[in-house]
Amino acid sequence: MTPAVVLVNPQLPENIGATARAMLNFGLTDLRLVAPRDSFPDVRATRMAAGAESVLEQARVFATSAEAVADLHYVLATCPRDREMVKPVLTPRRAMEHAMHEIAQARKVGILFGPERTGLFNEDVVRADARVEIPTNPDYSSLNLAQAVVVLAYEWFQASHQVEPEVMTLGKTMFATRDALEGLLEHLETELEQCDFFKSPPMKPTIVQNIRNVLLRARFTDQEVRTFRGMIRALVHKY
Amino acid sequence: MTPAVVLVNPQLPENIGATARAMLNFGLTDLRLVAPRDSFPDVRATRMAAGAESVLEQARVFATSAEAVADLHYVLATCPRDREMVKPVLTPRRAMEHAMHEIAQARKVGILFGPERTGLFNEDVVRADARVEIPTNPDYSSLNLAQAVVVLAYEWFQASHQVEPEVMTLGKTMFATRDALEGLLEHLETELEQCDFFKSPPMKPTIVQNIRNVLLRARFTDQEVRTFRGMIRALVHKY
Repeated sequence: MTPAVVLVNPQLPENIGATARAMLNFGLTDLRLVAPRDSFPDVRATRMAAGAESVLEQARVFATSAEAVADLHYVLATCPRDREMVKPVLTPRRAMEHAMHEIAQARKVGILFGPERTGLFNEDVVRADARVEIPTNPDYSSLNLAQAVVVLAYEWFQASHQVEPEVMTLGKTMFATRDALEGLLEHLETELEQCDFFKSPPMKPTIVQNIRNVLLRARFTDQEVRTFRGMIRALVHKY
Repeated sequence: MTPAVVLVNPQLPENIGATARAMLNFGLTDLRLVAPRDSFPDVRATRMAAGAESVLEQARVFATSAEAVADLHYVLATCPRDREMVKPVLTPRRAMEHAMHEIAQARKVGILFGPERTGLFNEDVVRADARVEIPTNPDYSSLNLAQAVVVLAYEWFQASHQVEPEVMTLGKTMFATRDALEGLLEHLETELEQCDFFKSPPMKPTIVQNIRNVLLRARFTDQEVRTFRGMIRALVHKY
């Protein structure tokens, strides 16, 4: 189960299409439209969906937002403005953590987005459990409708999937062992010794340490150790 | 200082405009274009910028991506595909944490985005310190260019601003004190006693406890306490 995306009175079919695309990008499929201004389906929506037509085909149209959220247990209203209501206000991240928790308890969640020009009506915000406010530049805070959907859908994916924040891609190779690295460093030192690189013997330990540090920072793979040893051999033969 | 957004060979002026809008929404202003397909400036870009024209006006056009990143100290390549390179891969969140750290040390940061159809070229990815991968639905992972910018720009704003994840908006009012709440609860209990609501005296403590719990969960404001006490008085007079 994933949260429903409820567009209340969307004006531009292009935004409905871009919403469908963003939803499917982040694994959301339940699109609900409340009284869209233009007819739906619409070729402008389909064109913007760019491969996410399945979301548009399954989308349901409702006459009122009350009907669109009737089956839901937890409703979030995405709305930038403080409506002078006593209502919890969540960041998209926190909101999607809550959504994940609700869905893990088999409760149905929906996220409301208002029309392009005005945002959500007060009556829709009142009906929500919490308001979601996307943190933005206070001097230019008006997000495009589909881009607001991107932010929530992106945070939904983050909340519902374990993603390693930092990894190293290795292709077909593997990090070099300490032994292989030691081989490279000794090879390099020996050749540098031979060509009289270490002109000042008292400085040698510091220079060697610096060379080792910069090369170790790069975290060499097996293949890269072989490439570098080949480079050293080639350079030595050249002179 | 904020990260530069570098669009490499963007094809659609609409995406350049939508990028400018998303950038300004999240406080980014340094837009760099590498050999855009169509002429720039372009009315289609300006229309999509919807108020963020200042970003387009300050945008710089470069012939090559090497020139566009020449002044930067830390370069990120947003690119969904594993190019079989040995390269750190970061989530947008981690990437923008790194960017924030770099900028706090007065080092210049840029984020590269590739052309719509192909994504970044290998030579651009090689030139980057790390690759950024936006976690997406593996069955439909191709993000719209401007929507990829939204995700990175949004994470930049998160990384560079302290935002409370969960607050309560109060409008012009204030949470009620325990004393005011106790007044409401005692008022309610007294009136319920009077109208013989507690039919079974042994059950009364449990029922009172449940009423107190649900009312306290709502975290009443001063105004709401007054409204509820008015409601109780009105209901009592009606019968």
